[in-house]
Amino acid sequence: MTGTVITLADLAEFLQVELHGGDSRSPIESLAPLDRAGPRQLAFMAHDRYRDSLIDTQAGAVILSPAHLPHCPVPALVCEHPHVAYAQAARRIHPDPVAVPGIHPSASISDQAVVHPTAQVGPQCVVEADCQIGPGVIMGPGCFLQAGCQVGENSRLVARVTLGPRVRLGRRALVQPGAVIGGDGFGFARQGEAWLRVPQVGSVCIGDDVEVGANTTIDRGALDDTIIEDGVKLDNLIQVAHNVHIGAHTAVAGCVGIAGSARIGRRCGIGGGAGILGHLEIADDVTVTAMTLVTHSIREPGVYSSGVPQAPAREWNRSLAHLRRLGELFRRVRGLEQEGDPGARQRR
Amino acid sequence: MTGTVITLADLAEFLQVELHGGDSRSPIESLAPLDRAGPRQLAFMAHDRYRDSLIDTQAGAVILSPAHLPHCPVPALVCEHPHVAYAQAARRIHPDPVAVPGIHPSASISDQAVVHPTAQVGPQCVVEADCQIGPGVIMGPGCFLQAGCQVGENSRLVARVTLGPRVRLGRRALVQPGAVIGGDGFGFARQGEAWLRVPQVGSVCIGDDVEVGANTTIDRGALDDTIIEDGVKLDNLIQVAHNVHIGAHTAVAGCVGIAGSARIGRRCGIGGGAGILGHLEIADDVTVTAMTLVTHSIREPGVYSSGVPQAPAREWNRSLAHLRRLGELFRRVRGLEQEGDPGARQRR
Amino acid sequence: MTGTVITLADLAEFLQVELHGGDSRSPIESLAPLDRAGPRQLAFMAHDRYRDSLIDTQAGAVILSPAHLPHCPVPALVCEHPHVAYAQAARRIHPDPVAVPGIHPSASISDQAVVHPTAQVGPQCVVEADCQIGPGVIMGPGCFLQAGCQVGENSRLVARVTLGPRVRLGRRALVQPGAVIGGDGFGFARQGEAWLRVPQVGSVCIGDDVEVGANTTIDRGALDDTIIEDGVKLDNLIQVAHNVHIGAHTAVAGCVGIAGSARIGRRCGIGGGAGILGHLEIADDVTVTAMTLVTHSIREPGVYSSGVPQAPAREWNRSLAHLRRLGELFRRVRGLEQEGDPGARQRR
Repeated sequence: MTGTVITLADLAEFLQVELHGGDSRSPIESLAPLDRAGPRQLAFMAHDRYRDSLIDTQAGAVILSPAHLPHCPVPALVCEHPHVAYAQAARRIHPDPVAVPGIHPSASISDQAVVHPTAQVGPQCVVEADCQIGPGVIMGPGCFLQAGCQVGENSRLVARVTLGPRVRLGRRALVQPGAVIGGDGFGFARQGEAWLRVPQVGSVCIGDDVEVGANTTIDRGALDDTIIEDGVKLDNLIQVAHNVHIGAHTAVAGCVGIAGSARIGRRCGIGGGAGILGHLEIADDVTVTAMTLVTHSIREPGVYSSGVPQAPAREWNRSLAHLRRLGELFRRVRGLEQEGDPGARQRR
Repeated sequence: MTGTVITLADLAEFLQVELHGGDSRSPIESLAPLDRAGPRQLAFMAHDRYRDSLIDTQAGAVILSPAHLPHCPVPALVCEHPHVAYAQAARRIHPDPVAVPGIHPSASISDQAVVHPTAQVGPQCVVEADCQIGPGVIMGPGCFLQAGCQVGENSRLVARVTLGPRVRLGRRALVQPGAVIGGDGFGFARQGEAWLRVPQVGSVCIGDDVEVGANTTIDRGALDDTIIEDGVKLDNLIQVAHNVHIGAHTAVAGCVGIAGSARIGRRCGIGGGAGILGHLEIADDVTVTAMTLVTHSIREPGVYSSGVPQAPAREWNRSLAHLRRLGELFRRVRGLEQEGDPGARQRR
Repeated sequence: MTGTVITLADLAEFLQVELHGGDSRSPIESLAPLDRAGPRQLAFMAHDRYRDSLIDTQAGAVILSPAHLPHCPVPALVCEHPHVAYAQAARRIHPDPVAVPGIHPSASISDQAVVHPTAQVGPQCVVEADCQIGPGVIMGPGCFLQAGCQVGENSRLVARVTLGPRVRLGRRALVQPGAVIGGDGFGFARQGEAWLRVPQVGSVCIGDDVEVGANTTIDRGALDDTIIEDGVKLDNLIQVAHNVHIGAHTAVAGCVGIAGSARIGRRCGIGGGAGILGHLEIADDVTVTAMTLVTHSIREPGVYSSGVPQAPAREWNRSLAHLRRLGELFRRVRGLEQEGDPGARQRR
């Protein structure tokens, strides 16, 4: 996809990096992988293993670290953190959309809501009383904000996002379609064989620079708020239960479920499909690998797992059969040990 | 959040419990945890482990069992089931929303649909022919009811809920945003290498007092209906396939997948992330713990598991390596046993 | 549910199969299981185990294979592939909905979008610039197409479907409510402790005859497109990350998560709740069973597993305890082996 055209010189200046080789007036207009980039495209060198692609690249320029410069046949933008510089360049060439101020005539906005004049409210949005929509906010079609919500400046709700009562969203949030933030927590008291719902009167408080994936759900707290700190990134189809607390800059991959009142630290990484039980704590800087079940608190940084890699079904079924017979094996080994120990035999 | 003000005397009468201590005219206006409640707030004592919080509480009143009364420094509402009483009190202070009768002008309602005059139909709702919306029903923005649906009295579809053809929802249902009830079941016949869709002509039949979480999906049956009995509680992001049958008062936590024609009993509890294969039965009063895979029928009440608690990755990888070598270990133990048995050695 | 009436003779001709017994003018008007079908209903014999139901059936006709014909007490439609013939018959009796051409007045269509005159665009749909809606397309209520999307002829977006920028959907697609196709991929560069978003400028390219389940999410590619080939069937609540490639006629069950750049072959079957890590390849004709975690490439066709069947919790906890002690058991067996081998004892 073609984006905003920028010259190599301007790009180098924007990134505050050094340009090696090439005509500084050459235009860059889009992004491409090393091995397919053409002369008006920017690529980047992510890893040593792409060295062959680098040697043959026809990119207009490559962002790379000093170590790779000698192998680069085209203009190079040299820096210590090529991935970060690439992300910045990419956002320069493909800038985030900017609000087109105004409220679509099909939107229903409460008289008691405040929409900043620079905000954009799309078709069929519904905004209830006491909501505050900040400057530069973009609300795509079909978003629904229940009473008392706040959306911080330059946030974007892409489409069909639902915010429950009094949800506060910080600045520069990006919420993908279908996300539900502030639905009722799953709280019940057992009365005989039935369940009696406990009203959920907390809400959800979300910091700055948070991203929420498509169809992800974050429940409002029972009494206190569910809290998502600054810079947290949530992928698609994640369930965050009531009163969960997620520390700043933690990233959670798709299909993760986090049960009520779990507290996850800062800068954690939670792998796809993992499950985190309720009322436990995970320290800062913890990595949980894919499809791991966290059943008890994690006090130390590090990598934690319980996912099982696939095997041919026949092999795996044999492993399971052996696993079920382990008690027997322990007994048999104990028997052998006692046989070899006449004292043990006597003590029996 | 402040709710409806009620005096201690009125609260005691409403709950039909005894009030100990305090001024019976003192007002309660909201809920709070024991350790943070102030004089106009109601708390409850959930568990022995909160005794220290009880001793220091400044709540306006505490709901607790007789055993804890001696330790309560503030007015107490004493009863056998504090959690149930608390839920009732909480719903008294924070009552469920009540329908504001009327149909929003942006809604599209078929001439052949019947909307009870006491029902509330929100902006952008679409209701097709032959639907019946009962008394006191609340439909939030963007709900879509395909032809022939029925919604029982005092049910609430919070927002953006989709009901497929002829879905019947009982009384007092609560359906969170984004739920899809009555999408097509996943049924195909293999024709060569392709899949030929089998029309799904059943629907979904849901009893009274059922709750359905945000972005949860319940497929319509192939021929017969998918059935959810009275009092079932489904959390967020659950998949219920075609022709599943869930017994009354069963609670299912988030991210669970239930495959086609599975039949789950009454009063079961299914933990988060569990998977239940199709065409099997689970008895009444079964608990399935988080991330368990149910591959065969469960005939007896009890607790069933196959989830694996996390461990440091290095430790877990060692366990996996050992697991793969179990066949070898069984052979080695057999070898040792035969060595110690001269007869076995001869028989070899 | 009653459908289109058809005589046995017409049904036999439509299916190109032989009719055995009965009055060829008898009408069939709906579908039912063997054991409950009445004289105006069509049933089919799926499996030997239903022979008792066949012997007692009162169906108007039964689709079955030649081997079962002798046991059929009612008119029979005989063919080699009863399931396929049944699917075809079922779609004849319950045909897919047909577009009612026109654009609902509440829809917002860009002047720069092209909607084919035979297409149906439902209430509250939003279609941005440069979209192309093909002949016979049905868009139910609340669908949102971002700029540059294409929807192929006779496709159906049931309701509340979101397509991101430049998503291409082939012919005869069926997309269930709440699906989000083309949300941003989850791509970030780490900058200090924060995450910097990498713009996702690819899109999603979907072939013909693809079905996408309710609330399923398919992310747009980072640079290149995410690709779903012809005939792929995706169930509900599936997450497909950026730059995934799914081969033709692969079926994926509910709650599966597929991480970025995974490449899945043709005619695969992925069981419910499975997780597939990123940047790996799965060959054609691979079956992955439910809740399996695929951590490395699969090069050969076959069945692969790592799911663990449930057990009574007490039993399972014992297995887990044994599993953790396996290292110790290996050492003890080694010890016993060395005891029995005097040479080994000396070498110690």
